[in-house]
Amino acid sequence: MIIQLEKNITEEEKHLIVEKMLDAGYKSNFVSTQYCDYIIGVGDKEFDIRAIGILPGVKDIHIVLEPSKLVSKKWKTNDTIIDLGDGIKIGGGNFQIMAGPCSIESEEQIQATVKHLLKNNIRIMRGGVFKPRSSPYAFRGLGLEGLKMFYKHCKKNGIKIVTEVMMPEQIEKMYEYVDIFQVGARNSQNFNLLDQLGKQDKPVMLKRGISGTLDELLASAEYIFSNGNEDILLCERGIRTYEKSYRNTFDINSIPVLKEKSHLPVVIDASHGVGIRKYVEPVSLAGVIAGGDAVITEVHEIPQKAFSDGAQTLSHDEAKIYYQNVRKTFEFRKTLNRY
Amino acid sequence: MIIQLEKNITEEEKHLIVEKMLDAGYKSNFVSTQYCDYIIGVGDKEFDIRAIGILPGVKDIHIVLEPSKLVSKKWKTNDTIIDLGDGIKIGGGNFQIMAGPCSIESEEQIQATVKHLLKNNIRIMRGGVFKPRSSPYAFRGLGLEGLKMFYKHCKKNGIKIVTEVMMPEQIEKMYEYVDIFQVGARNSQNFNLLDQLGKQDKPVMLKRGISGTLDELLASAEYIFSNGNEDILLCERGIRTYEKSYRNTFDINSIPVLKEKSHLPVVIDASHGVGIRKYVEPVSLAGVIAGGDAVITEVHEIPQKAFSDGAQTLSHDEAKIYYQNVRKTFEFRKTLNRY
Amino acid sequence: MIIQLEKNITEEEKHLIVEKMLDAGYKSNFVSTQYCDYIIGVGDKEFDIRAIGILPGVKDIHIVLEPSKLVSKKWKTNDTIIDLGDGIKIGGGNFQIMAGPCSIESEEQIQATVKHLLKNNIRIMRGGVFKPRSSPYAFRGLGLEGLKMFYKHCKKNGIKIVTEVMMPEQIEKMYEYVDIFQVGARNSQNFNLLDQLGKQDKPVMLKRGISGTLDELLASAEYIFSNGNEDILLCERGIRTYEKSYRNTFDINSIPVLKEKSHLPVVIDASHGVGIRKYVEPVSLAGVIAGGDAVITEVHEIPQKAFSDGAQTLSHDEAKIYYQNVRKTFEFRKTLNRY
Amino acid sequence: MIIQLEKNITEEEKHLIVEKMLDAGYKSNFVSTQYCDYIIGVGDKEFDIRAIGILPGVKDIHIVLEPSKLVSKKWKTNDTIIDLGDGIKIGGGNFQIMAGPCSIESEEQIQATVKHLLKNNIRIMRGGVFKPRSSPYAFRGLGLEGLKMFYKHCKKNGIKIVTEVMMPEQIEKMYEYVDIFQVGARNSQNFNLLDQLGKQDKPVMLKRGISGTLDELLASAEYIFSNGNEDILLCERGIRTYEKSYRNTFDINSIPVLKEKSHLPVVIDASHGVGIRKYVEPVSLAGVIAGGDAVITEVHEIPQKAFSDGAQTLSHDEAKIYYQNVRKTFEFRKTLNRY
Repeated sequence: MIIQLEKNITEEEKHLIVEKMLDAGYKSNFVSTQYCDYIIGVGDKEFDIRAIGILPGVKDIHIVLEPSKLVSKKWKTNDTIIDLGDGIKIGGGNFQIMAGPCSIESEEQIQATVKHLLKNNIRIMRGGVFKPRSSPYAFRGLGLEGLKMFYKHCKKNGIKIVTEVMMPEQIEKMYEYVDIFQVGARNSQNFNLLDQLGKQDKPVMLKRGISGTLDELLASAEYIFSNGNEDILLCERGIRTYEKSYRNTFDINSIPVLKEKSHLPVVIDASHGVGIRKYVEPVSLAGVIAGGDAVITEVHEIPQKAFSDGAQTLSHDEAKIYYQNVRKTFEFRKTLNRY
Repeated sequence: MIIQLEKNITEEEKHLIVEKMLDAGYKSNFVSTQYCDYIIGVGDKEFDIRAIGILPGVKDIHIVLEPSKLVSKKWKTNDTIIDLGDGIKIGGGNFQIMAGPCSIESEEQIQATVKHLLKNNIRIMRGGVFKPRSSPYAFRGLGLEGLKMFYKHCKKNGIKIVTEVMMPEQIEKMYEYVDIFQVGARNSQNFNLLDQLGKQDKPVMLKRGISGTLDELLASAEYIFSNGNEDILLCERGIRTYEKSYRNTFDINSIPVLKEKSHLPVVIDASHGVGIRKYVEPVSLAGVIAGGDAVITEVHEIPQKAFSDGAQTLSHDEAKIYYQNVRKTFEFRKTLNRY
Repeated sequence: MIIQLEKNITEEEKHLIVEKMLDAGYKSNFVSTQYCDYIIGVGDKEFDIRAIGILPGVKDIHIVLEPSKLVSKKWKTNDTIIDLGDGIKIGGGNFQIMAGPCSIESEEQIQATVKHLLKNNIRIMRGGVFKPRSSPYAFRGLGLEGLKMFYKHCKKNGIKIVTEVMMPEQIEKMYEYVDIFQVGARNSQNFNLLDQLGKQDKPVMLKRGISGTLDELLASAEYIFSNGNEDILLCERGIRTYEKSYRNTFDINSIPVLKEKSHLPVVIDASHGVGIRKYVEPVSLAGVIAGGDAVITEVHEIPQKAFSDGAQTLSHDEAKIYYQNVRKTFEFRKTLNRY
Repeated sequence: MIIQLEKNITEEEKHLIVEKMLDAGYKSNFVSTQYCDYIIGVGDKEFDIRAIGILPGVKDIHIVLEPSKLVSKKWKTNDTIIDLGDGIKIGGGNFQIMAGPCSIESEEQIQATVKHLLKNNIRIMRGGVFKPRSSPYAFRGLGLEGLKMFYKHCKKNGIKIVTEVMMPEQIEKMYEYVDIFQVGARNSQNFNLLDQLGKQDKPVMLKRGISGTLDELLASAEYIFSNGNEDILLCERGIRTYEKSYRNTFDINSIPVLKEKSHLPVVIDASHGVGIRKYVEPVSLAGVIAGGDAVITEVHEIPQKAFSDGAQTLSHDEAKIYYQNVRKTFEFRKTLNRY
C-alpha cells in the first residue's frame, strides 16, 4: 500500500491514517523524500482502500503487493526522469551516454577524456577514484584528491560526474564533487551504504549485484527511496555464470523486465557486461533497443595503458563511431510499432 | 590444420599427404561433405604448412588451432549461407523469420498458421511433432503422421519446415518432409544423433545446450560438419541461471562471440530465451541488432489454448507487428557504421 | 495417484477403474514392470480414494501429487534394493563400491583392474566402451569388442559390469554383457533412450544432467520406471557452476534431498563431482555420510597414462586406502543417532 | 614473496630489504600483525631468494606466487589456531560448535539459548543484532542494546559470542562485546569493512560471497591479514545456483580445496548452506568429514516463532542429537587412514 500525503497534512491526520491502517492489518512506514511524503503500508490483508483514500491529508492511495513498493510501476506509471541540471536528463524518453576511464589516473588523462567527450557531445563522465579491488595489493584509486581534480576539469566544461562511493563515511566528503553516486556490484546489498545514500538529494546509480536477482536489485533501490531519495538509476552490468568465453553474462532479459516492473531508468553497462572490447558495441546496441535509458561505457585514450579494465575499454577513435551507433539506435527505437 | 583437397585427387596423393602430416606430428581425419573433401590434421606441433601446401591434390591449407576446426572462421572467413531453395536463404546478409506453434496440434491449426505466415510473407514454419518433455505423462507430439500433415500444407504453399528430430532412427522417416532438422537443447550433446545428421544433405539447426558453453556448441557443430554436412545453423535459446523472473537467460553476448568465432549463421530464439510473451520482442530485436541471421519464434492463433509453451507464444495479431519490427531492425543494422 | 493392481485382475476390472478415474477427473496410464502392474492417475482434483480402493483388482492405492510419481517415496516408503545377483545388492542398507578406469583401453588394463578389484573385495567394475566426447576427433572408446573383452574377464571373476549406453540401438547388442546400464550426464534427458531402457529388465544408473535439477532427474527416472523397469539408481556427479578451482560442483545437498523424495538408491560419483584426484576422497566420504548407497570411482594402474580423465583418477595404491575409508564411513554412519 | 622480519629489525635494515626487492623487480608492502612483521613482495620475476634471506633483520623468506599470499599454505604449512581464551580453540585439530538463533530477539530468548548451550557443552553462541535484510521493511535486529544484553548473559556463563558486523563505524562500539566478528555473505567484498577488521585484534569469521569464488574468499581474507589481523576463519555457507529444491548449494568441494590452499580454519554453515531443517545435519556431517574445523548452526527454542530463518533452524531437542553426531563425526575423522 502506498499513501501519498498532502504537503500540509497535520500530525493528527497522520496518526489517524496509521490507526486505520493498523485496523486493516497494515504496519505503517513513514517516508519523506525530496519530492513527497508517503506512508508505506506493509501487510497482506485485503481491504477497501477507499476507506483510507477519503481521509483528510491523503492525496492518493495505491495497492502495491510487491515487496518493493516505492520503486514499482504499480503506483507510479510514469517513468522517473533524473534531472542533472543544464538540460541533462535521463529517463522518460531522455537518453544519455556516460563515458570515461575505469579509473581516474592523472590530470592529463582527465583533460584528454574531457576533450574527447566535448568533441562527441557527451555530457556525463565516468571514472573511479575509490576502486574496489579483489586484491589488497592492487591500485585502489587516487581517492578524494583525484576526485577534486576530476571535478575541476568537468565543472568548467559543463560535464557531470558519476563515480563510485564505497562506504557511508565517504559520502559527505564526495558530495560537493559528484553528480551521480555510483554503487558498485559488490556493494549492491551494502544496506548501510544504501540507507545513507537515501538521505542525499543527489541521484544514485545502483549496479546489480554480481549474481544479484532483479528482485534484489529493486529491493536495494527501495532502501534508497524509502530513506528519502527518489532519484535512482538501475544499472545492468552482467551476471556471473559458468560461461568462460567472456567476462560476465549481460542479462538482456533484465532490461524489459525492469522497465516493466519499475518506473526507474535503466542504464546499460556493456563494458562490464561482456568485458571484451570488440563486443561492447553490439551488446550496448542490444541493450538500447531492448529499452535502456542510458549507456555507461569505458573509454581511454590508450586502452593498453589503462590502470584497470583495459581489455574492455574502447579507444577514443572506436568510441566516436560507437557513440554514433548508440544514438542512431536510440532514435531508431522510437520508430518501432507497439502492440 | 585444415587441408582442402582437389576434386580429382588420387588415393596415392592422399596417402602422401597423410604421411607428411604424420611426419609433422599430426593425425589425419578425412572429411567429405556435400561441397568439398578435407583432411583435418589434429596435433599441436609447429611446422611450415607450405611443405604440404605444395603437394599435388591440395587446393588450400590453413592453420586452425581451435579444437573446433571446420566450423571456425579461421579458415573460412566468408559467412556460410544456408540455401533452402525457392530463394530462401539464411546467413551472409540473408535474413529469415521462422515462426509457428510450439507443437503441431491439428490440421486446422496448421492451416491457420500457414495462412498467417503467407499473409506476413514468412517462408519458414516451425512446429514440433516429436516433443521432448520432462514428464513421461505429458503430450509428446503427433509424431510422423503429424509431420506428414504439416508437410502437405506447407509444400503446396511454398513454406519450408523446421522441426525437431530426437533420435537417429527418426531421421530417415522424417527426411522427405523436413527442410531443416532441429536438434533441441537437451540433445545438444547427443553425439550419435549429431553423427547421423552429419550424414544428411539437409540443413541442421543446432540449439545450444541448457547450460552449454559456446565452445561445446561449436564442438557439436563440428560433429555434424566432420561427418559430412556443412549446412549448420547455430541457435541461441537462453541458458539456465539462478534468476527466477523469467524462464531462461538469453545470452546476448553469445551472438557477437559466435559470429566472430564461426562462419555459421546464428538464429535467435527469444521465445525460449526469455519465456514470457511480452518480452519476446525486445529480446528478439536485441538479438538481431547484435548480429543474428534469423529469428525463430513461437506464434499461435490462441496462445492460451496452445498444448505447450503458451505463456511465451505470440498471438497472430501481436506477431504481425513483431515481424515488422524484426525486419526493420535488420534493415537498420545495415546502416550502422563500422570501426 | 498410484494404483497397484492384483496379478489376476481382469480386463473388465481394469476398464472399470479407468472409468471411475475419468469420472474423478484423472487420466490413466498403464504401467507394467518386472515386479508389478500399476495404473498411474494424472490429474489434480481432490477425491476420496477409497471409492477406487475398494474396486476388485485393486491391491493398493496412494495419493502422489508430485509430477514424478512412481519414483516417489510418497507411495513406496521402503527403499528400493537393486539386486545384481551373487549377493551383490545396493540400497536399503546395502552398500557397494564401483571402481575402474574411465575408458576400457586394453585387455592388459582390464586384467590389472580386475586383479586390483579382487584384492580389495570390490564386486562392480566401471569402464566406458562408448565414450561421449565433446570433440569428434577425440578417442571414442573400444566399442562392442571392448565390452566383450571387459565381460570375459569380469564374468569369470564374479565381477559385475556398469558401463555407459549412448543410444537405443546399442542396448540390444550390449545387453548380454552388462549388469548395470549407465546413462551419462549428457543423455540425462535423452527421453528415447530412457524409454528403451525402461523396457529392459536390467538395472539402470541414471546420472544427473550437467546442470539438471533434482526434479528433472526424478522425472527422467520416472520415464524408465513408467516404461516397465523399476531397477534404477540415481547418480549425483556434480553440477556446472561458475567456480573454477575444480571441475564440477558436487551437490552434497542433493543426497539427503533425493533420499527424502525417492525410494531409489543414490550413487556418489566424486570423481566427476570434483574432478581433482586429491579431493576425491573427502568428497566421497561426505557423500557417504550424507546418505549415499554406493560410490563410483575412477581408478587406474597409472593415472598419468589413462586415455581420459587421468587428473581425477586414483592410482591402485591410493584406491586401497580410499576403499577402506569409504567402508569405514558407511559403517560409522550406522552408529549415528536419529531425531 | 613473504619475508618474515625479526622483532628487533632496524629501519635501515628494512630499507635495505626494500631496495634489494626493488632491484629484483618486486614492490614491497609492510604488514604488521598482532604476531609478526612482514614484507610482502608483489612481482613475478624469478630470483634467488637467498640473496634476501641472508640480510640482517630477516627471519625467514618464502616464495608465494598466488595472488593471496599471507593466507596461503605455501609459506605457513601449519594450520592457524584461533584461540578465544578459556581453552576454546578452533583449527589445528581443535573443533568447535557455534550455535544459536539467527537473530537475537529478547532477553528470554538469550537465556533459554544459553541454558541450552551449557547443557550441551557448547562454548560459542551465534546471534545477529545487526541483520542485513533484502527489504527495508523487514526486522533489522535489536542493534547495540541487543548486543549488550547478549554479552551480559554469555559473559557470566563463559560463552563466547560470534555476531555480524555490517559497517566500519559499528566495529568500535561492538568491540567490547564480541569474541568473533562475523562478515556476512553480502559484505564478503566490502573492502573498507575488511580493512578496518584487519586493524582489530579479535578474530574475524569471513563468509563466502553469495556467488563468490574461492579465490575471492581468500583475497578478502588477505585484506584482513594484510591490515594486521591474522586471526581469520573462512566460512562456507553455500552458493547461489539454479537448483530450486533447497535454498543455497552447499559447496562441499570448497572444504578440501580451502584446507589445501590456506592455513586458516574452515567453518561449516549448513543452516544457510541448504536452508531446510531436516537436511542441516547430513550436510553438516559431510562438511565435518571433508575437513571442517567448526560448524555454525541456527537453533531456536521454537523455530516456528523465530523472527527470521525459522525454516532452517533446529529445535533445542533436535540440536541435542545433532551436536552428538557432529562431535562423533569429528572424532571418527581422526581414525581415517591417509595416503
